[in-house]
Amino acid sequence: MKSRAQRAIAECKTIAAMSEEPGRITRRFLTPPVRNVHAHLRARMESMDMTVCIDAAGNLRGLWQPASASPKRLILGSHIDTVPNAGAFDGVLGVALALEWVDLAQELELPLAVEVIAFSEEEGVRYGVPFIGSRAVAGRFAPALLALKDAEGVTVDAALRAFSLHPEQIGEASASADAIGFVEIHIEQGPVLDAEGLSVAAVTAIVGQTRLNLKFSGQANHAGTTPMRLRHDALAAAAELITAVEALAQRTDGLVATVGKINVEPNAANVVPGAVQVSLEVRDANDTMRVAAVEELLARAAAIAARRGISLEQTELLDQPAVPMDERLTAFLTDAIEAAGFPVKTMTSGAGHDAMVMASRMPTAMLFLRSPGGISHHPSETVREEDVEASLLVGSEFLQRVATEIG
Amino acid sequence: MKSRAQRAIAECKTIAAMSEEPGRITRRFLTPPVRNVHAHLRARMESMDMTVCIDAAGNLRGLWQPASASPKRLILGSHIDTVPNAGAFDGVLGVALALEWVDLAQELELPLAVEVIAFSEEEGVRYGVPFIGSRAVAGRFAPALLALKDAEGVTVDAALRAFSLHPEQIGEASASADAIGFVEIHIEQGPVLDAEGLSVAAVTAIVGQTRLNLKFSGQANHAGTTPMRLRHDALAAAAELITAVEALAQRTDGLVATVGKINVEPNAANVVPGAVQVSLEVRDANDTMRVAAVEELLARAAAIAARRGISLEQTELLDQPAVPMDERLTAFLTDAIEAAGFPVKTMTSGAGHDAMVMASRMPTAMLFLRSPGGISHHPSETVREEDVEASLLVGSEFLQRVATEIG
Repeated sequence: MKSRAQRAIAECKTIAAMSEEPGRITRRFLTPPVRNVHAHLRARMESMDMTVCIDAAGNLRGLWQPASASPKRLILGSHIDTVPNAGAFDGVLGVALALEWVDLAQELELPLAVEVIAFSEEEGVRYGVPFIGSRAVAGRFAPALLALKDAEGVTVDAALRAFSLHPEQIGEASASADAIGFVEIHIEQGPVLDAEGLSVAAVTAIVGQTRLNLKFSGQANHAGTTPMRLRHDALAAAAELITAVEALAQRTDGLVATVGKINVEPNAANVVPGAVQVSLEVRDANDTMRVAAVEELLARAAAIAARRGISLEQTELLDQPAVPMDERLTAFLTDAIEAAGFPVKTMTSGAGHDAMVMASRMPTAMLFLRSPGGISHHPSETVREEDVEASLLVGSEFLQRVATEIG
Repeated sequence: MKSRAQRAIAECKTIAAMSEEPGRITRRFLTPPVRNVHAHLRARMESMDMTVCIDAAGNLRGLWQPASASPKRLILGSHIDTVPNAGAFDGVLGVALALEWVDLAQELELPLAVEVIAFSEEEGVRYGVPFIGSRAVAGRFAPALLALKDAEGVTVDAALRAFSLHPEQIGEASASADAIGFVEIHIEQGPVLDAEGLSVAAVTAIVGQTRLNLKFSGQANHAGTTPMRLRHDALAAAAELITAVEALAQRTDGLVATVGKINVEPNAANVVPGAVQVSLEVRDANDTMRVAAVEELLARAAAIAARRGISLEQTELLDQPAVPMDERLTAFLTDAIEAAGFPVKTMTSGAGHDAMVMASRMPTAMLFLRSPGGISHHPSETVREEDVEASLLVGSEFLQRVATEIG
């Protein structure tokens, strides 16, 4: 397993060099380095006797179909696009490990068809909309997406055609709904496994998310000449809310709530702030808890504003329900973790993943690998070789269980 | 008095049209419209038999010296420069009313020499340093000021020479230290008189001021994947401090404390804030109270940072002591307010004024006029005719007392 782990890590580093920017890892949807990644992965897949194609949404797909196995396949995969100035492992490691899992299935001579998908788009960088690749595979690609334009005014439709693809065939990219299921292997992108000293975890759900903007409008005044009792300080109101947001989240197990963005007008040291806009983001695997928390925080914001003679506007930007992972597939993963000799850890994913989209089409599960320092979306993103090795031991156990009990 | 009040207001409106920008009032130190203001005021002063000169710092000075009076003079004045997009009354009204006070002294045939100074620079807009005009009159013009450059790279020295002035003669601009004193009439630029329904007040002190920047450096993290217990949220820390700043100021009579400016990194809705810089400004007429409040707030900030595992840097930008007004001159003002039939109101000035600088040279007092809505440094800055009339009635009483008891 050690050499497989080293090979998977080396593969990520090889692909990291295929970038839009020298010295930085940036690889947006259908940009020129994606052709290099496709050529590289196609050669690897073909050397493994996999049948390779690129679907109409730009996803590279390789199928390992043993003669003895049913065509009902297990799908593995993750994405090969990146954020600007990314790390080497987000997404790509999931593809590299999917190929190692196929290698394991081949070595074990499992009677199991396995398709590996390198999704073309997950990060939402080029078109502001994420999951373009997995939407197509899940049969959820809305035709309106084709009209989206990037910063240069190039539509999705035009970008696909320039990549020698045929957008009118995107419907054919959708996976057969009678697939065994989809498993995504991904770095955690958070600090939980690192803090607990664990290599891997099975994901039970991808959390739901509410995102709002709240604007407090008070009265800008001279900071020297306006006594405290005559102020309507919008930043003091926002500060009270920020404290309440943190306190509520701290006392609510599993929930996270964040004010990450604040804009103050006029934002001058000697002026009492007149207007402040803050972002509010609340995430929880339990939608009921999330909605209740948002309601409580909005009521709190309204009370703060009213008491201070300040007006409050709220704009909801996102209300995305949680996506539970498939119980049976996830149980195979936790059994595999235990059988491979690791502590069984389950956790929610606080970030969105292709698995969230694929879950609408077929049973879906996710395996997380520790992110040292919790660092991701940053050049210093890393992965430990022992954790990659652990994920391969888990993969071997998992594939045997799937082959025996479903395949 | 009504026609004098109307004349003073009309004078402000006439001068407001002398601007660097059409349709907006912007008149920085020694810019072309200042020549027009000087020509206008010089003509007015000469028509009142005043002797007029422009000193080497660009201050326009007119002296009314009755034959019967000692040359020991009372100095009145305020500034004629403005902030960008200013109102018509900040500074200029004090000059217009000073001329009306001279007119009253002439009508009353008071044996009192009165000099009116239209200070060239108070706002600090062109060179980032305020009070250039009154520093010269107070004998506190540091030669280093001549080397300051404006946004176009023009030094103070060059700007003075381009205005046909001789910077080497600035020392001669300083007022004789045996002047009777200096009185500045100014709009309050705050909401206190308006809230109390009063026309005028005597200023007892110009508050001292501490200004600092505080920077909380925590850890930027993914807002979805980082549990609350593993966060080091710099904005949550700053919010706690902002709440503490407001609470301390609210329970400390006469003190104001403001966080007016905040900068968050990376300032994204889905990222736990990694670093936050806030301004902290504390003002009080009592320096001991101010320094104690700053110490308490800094200790609070340090405790907040330590508890959260966040680092704190602080940078002091300003530590300016309070400037008390002269008790005797201020008593003449309060006596005059009472004699003129108005409620005696005294208050501190939360903003800096030329009077603050002049107080280092001679006995100094200030008379505030109500600012409707507390609005200043804004085109909608106004003044009520009845309040201007009140200030003239007070002026008449004040001048008679000064002529009798000092002049």
